[in-house]
Amino acid sequence: MRKIVRINMTDLTCKEEDIRNEYKYLGARGLTSAIVAFEVRPKCDPFSAENKVIFAPGLLAGTSAPCSGRISIGGKSPLTGTIKEANAGGTAAQLLAQYGISALVIEGKPVSGRLRSRASVMERGTYIVKISEEGVELIRDDQIKKLGNYELVDQLRKKYGPNISCITIGPAGENGMLSATIAVTDPQGRPTRHAGRGGLGAVLGAKRVKGIVIESKNVKKVTLKESKRFMESANLLAKLLKEHPVTGKALPTYGSNILANVINAVGAYPTRNFSEGRFEGIKNISGEKQREVILKRGGKIKRTCSDGCPIACSRTYVDRFGKYLTKGPEYETIWAHGANCGIDNMDTIAQIDRLCDDYGMDTIEIGGAIAVVMEAGTLQFGDEKAAIRLAKEAGEATSLLGRIIGNGAKVTGEILNVQRVPVVKGQSLPGYDPRAAKGIGVTYATSTMGADHTAGYATAVNLLKLGGFVNPLRKEGQAKLSKKLQILTTALDSVGMCLFVIFCILDQPEAMQAIIDMVNARFGLTFGLREITELGEKVLKIERQFNLKAGIGHSQDRLPDFFVKEKLPPHNVVFDVSGKELQKVSQLQI
Amino acid sequence: MRKIVRINMTDLTCKEEDIRNEYKYLGARGLTSAIVAFEVRPKCDPFSAENKVIFAPGLLAGTSAPCSGRISIGGKSPLTGTIKEANAGGTAAQLLAQYGISALVIEGKPVSGRLRSRASVMERGTYIVKISEEGVELIRDDQIKKLGNYELVDQLRKKYGPNISCITIGPAGENGMLSATIAVTDPQGRPTRHAGRGGLGAVLGAKRVKGIVIESKNVKKVTLKESKRFMESANLLAKLLKEHPVTGKALPTYGSNILANVINAVGAYPTRNFSEGRFEGIKNISGEKQREVILKRGGKIKRTCSDGCPIACSRTYVDRFGKYLTKGPEYETIWAHGANCGIDNMDTIAQIDRLCDDYGMDTIEIGGAIAVVMEAGTLQFGDEKAAIRLAKEAGEATSLLGRIIGNGAKVTGEILNVQRVPVVKGQSLPGYDPRAAKGIGVTYATSTMGADHTAGYATAVNLLKLGGFVNPLRKEGQAKLSKKLQILTTALDSVGMCLFVIFCILDQPEAMQAIIDMVNARFGLTFGLREITELGEKVLKIERQFNLKAGIGHSQDRLPDFFVKEKLPPHNVVFDVSGKELQKVSQLQI
Repeated sequence: MRKIVRINMTDLTCKEEDIRNEYKYLGARGLTSAIVAFEVRPKCDPFSAENKVIFAPGLLAGTSAPCSGRISIGGKSPLTGTIKEANAGGTAAQLLAQYGISALVIEGKPVSGRLRSRASVMERGTYIVKISEEGVELIRDDQIKKLGNYELVDQLRKKYGPNISCITIGPAGENGMLSATIAVTDPQGRPTRHAGRGGLGAVLGAKRVKGIVIESKNVKKVTLKESKRFMESANLLAKLLKEHPVTGKALPTYGSNILANVINAVGAYPTRNFSEGRFEGIKNISGEKQREVILKRGGKIKRTCSDGCPIACSRTYVDRFGKYLTKGPEYETIWAHGANCGIDNMDTIAQIDRLCDDYGMDTIEIGGAIAVVMEAGTLQFGDEKAAIRLAKEAGEATSLLGRIIGNGAKVTGEILNVQRVPVVKGQSLPGYDPRAAKGIGVTYATSTMGADHTAGYATAVNLLKLGGFVNPLRKEGQAKLSKKLQILTTALDSVGMCLFVIFCILDQPEAMQAIIDMVNARFGLTFGLREITELGEKVLKIERQFNLKAGIGHSQDRLPDFFVKEKLPPHNVVFDVSGKELQKVSQLQI
Repeated sequence: MRKIVRINMTDLTCKEEDIRNEYKYLGARGLTSAIVAFEVRPKCDPFSAENKVIFAPGLLAGTSAPCSGRISIGGKSPLTGTIKEANAGGTAAQLLAQYGISALVIEGKPVSGRLRSRASVMERGTYIVKISEEGVELIRDDQIKKLGNYELVDQLRKKYGPNISCITIGPAGENGMLSATIAVTDPQGRPTRHAGRGGLGAVLGAKRVKGIVIESKNVKKVTLKESKRFMESANLLAKLLKEHPVTGKALPTYGSNILANVINAVGAYPTRNFSEGRFEGIKNISGEKQREVILKRGGKIKRTCSDGCPIACSRTYVDRFGKYLTKGPEYETIWAHGANCGIDNMDTIAQIDRLCDDYGMDTIEIGGAIAVVMEAGTLQFGDEKAAIRLAKEAGEATSLLGRIIGNGAKVTGEILNVQRVPVVKGQSLPGYDPRAAKGIGVTYATSTMGADHTAGYATAVNLLKLGGFVNPLRKEGQAKLSKKLQILTTALDSVGMCLFVIFCILDQPEAMQAIIDMVNARFGLTFGLREITELGEKVLKIERQFNLKAGIGHSQDRLPDFFVKEKLPPHNVVFDVSGKELQKVSQLQI
């Protein structure tokens, strides 16, 4: 029985409803985007009662399908003004699915006369949503107000038992910061997996929901229409993932940061606020180096971020004394707080990662904002102590500069009068320079989500040469590549798969077929690749339509001018995919 | 001979050209908007070399036509992202016209490798444009860098003689503040008349032009095709203006702030960041009170801001010791720093007016931003000392809060997490609450310029009942009224008339005819009311087209949600003109 649970924060009620026909075979991003598009007024203030935050596991969550444990979180983004889906690993998606919950919708907002500020609403009560075999419950708990995610999940475990999964926000969300994330606990119960982008944590904060606690007692596996066929496909996918050099070897051995050396070598590793494509300090912050440090100090590699993942690219990072500090910081984090800020000290980056996880802030957005502060000359590139201090100030929201950074790179550039601000639709660019990796540049410009590498990871083809090759330095073919990947990714996001399966899929079409077969076996359907592609297109169109109604059209599908005008060393290339081609990608017409 | 003078700041050259056919009978706003629309890439970064700042006197400037001394200043606004025309009085327009200059275009920008910040460009040189009978000259003068407008014009007079007219920017423009104005000296040589809205001062600052000096030696009156007919019309207009109760009595006697009591009485006087429609301290900041204070202390009333104006609504405000402090602050300034901030002390407001004039900041934007700081609870409404301090900090750009405020209300709200931020297209609303004065609400929402009362002053009909009456509290008829006034105003702005003639025109169609007759007599044309109306429509369409290409379409033609949702006391009304009607106004189809 798939159902939707709605928590109404206006009248503080919970109710369950059967999933409507129009939402029936939608999951994860497909479902969050459909609910946002059909139920949220596109022009609404993202912090108003009209916005919703939707949590949706994928179509295969709660089963033993490999890599199916992503949770999609959707809403209207206060950072980009667009529709937003950000997904995370962790243990919540599997549990939600096992409770039969296709979507948990947090809607409304406590009524008040006049809301003087977003921050002040938290003063009137802090709530936890509890999901257990007894049902869904809304519990007021003002004691947990403004706790960091780590302390918060510790306290929640003390109250609700050791075997819970938690979805939480840190102080950044309560403070209304546009970089605020929503954290999901990993299999070790730590709040390390974040739906990072677009500030949805602040939307949840405005609704005064500090967390969702999901009990794991007495949950049952999801029932399958055809379990034998399902298991065959699941085993096949697991096998293919194990055999592929990226998902079977590189990622488990080194983690996502294996990319650092690769991207740096091809000259697409954005250094010092996207002014160079290679970083001289790369050897100190590479994936290889991270592995070495972790193993030497007694940290762990090959951990899963979500149960039942055969890739296991997660790690735990320990300090010099062998004490747990944070999960192994991922590629984007190491880049954003490393090369992008001119910093080559892994311990410094790990400290900032821990701070961001604890305060609940997007590491890409915070790294982007700190680099803009450095660009302004307010502090020097490479100033590690200042970077740590600024991340703290952003999290605490005590200083004005902290508030500025916590609201992201765009506003930081506005206040400090910096011209070179690498954002699209207000969201910071991830760690691939669009001039030397033009395919991902097309994705940044045209994604329905603002600058988002996960929306169409052209780097896999441009730089890793998986499933073909399109020269990253030339404009030819990039539009087509990005469009194709955006559709495929949207489909995978809507099934609720971890994006990393794409490395395998690009090389092995059987892997894609195995995923489709699992969906069919789960629901008794007969989808083929065509139906799945159509699903991707349909969801993208729903999202695009929402954005258009929100006033965000093709004119905003572009990179900041400096990528077009300023040559990136060492290849001395600019971003030259034409506006016309970008428009065609947005309209899925190339 | 009408000509265009171009100052190219990329190669530091000046050149003159005959006016092209397409610009032939365009003046003031008509000409600045046409040049922006035809020559500036709509999507360009407003601080880049691609943007231009255009200074254009009106079609009647340089003649003895009453109220013809406005100077239009145009460009792409860094505050709103739209096309922008802001006009000011002062003595510059008449002189430019007498030199035969229809438009002075500042274009390009000194070339540099990588511009780290907008502010830093000023470090590489500061320039003055000098216009005299010897021609146009570009002079480097680094000594004047970061001078306040008052000290700057004093120094310019010492260097270039006592009889110059100056167009200047203060430190706010050099610091790239989005509230930065461009000042024009009044007949007393003081920098009190500002093209205030939209941050064009910062665009000029990015081009490193600190000022334009215009010598008044040996200038000749503009030649007229039919001088007898011209003088008859000029005399008729002057007579009608003298006879009208608003332009002949109220404005010269009390200044623009005569409106304060009127707008407050009808409950449309925005108080404490647009939360109430009446201010309890009104008697201390009314136009009547201002006159009393000025006369008692030996200040002056009935001054002209521009030569040959028969209205003479300007004043000089002196301190308790009879010493000149600032020009008599206008209605918008007194409201923005008075009622809107809960302040009822005229001396405090006059001090802030002086600071804003000196630093070169828009009083509406700065007042709007300070009110948002008060809304955030960072300081209390009514805190006079803090308001003065914040205006200083914004002007000096030394503190972060100063930088935030100096960049306007929108960004202030973003950083301080305030939901109630009264802006349209990023520009602060002027002093008429759109809920109790719905006609001007339609103008705020639909103007090509962002929230701008001067773009279609429906208050004249809604509240002053000039030329008819449309009930300000009801939505019926407001769209039509605003559209009609936007067209009429654009025509008047394009002739280069002071907007205040509209009070007379609405009651006396002969006044409009007299203006048209003067244009005809000046150029030997045969325009009628239809041609002038078509001119207004044409210019509006050119502007709208630019905005659409810049990515700013109808979806942004709306007021912030709180005007729609929150009732304004005392009439407890909301803004309820429909989005459909607003769209029709934008498209000039109602």
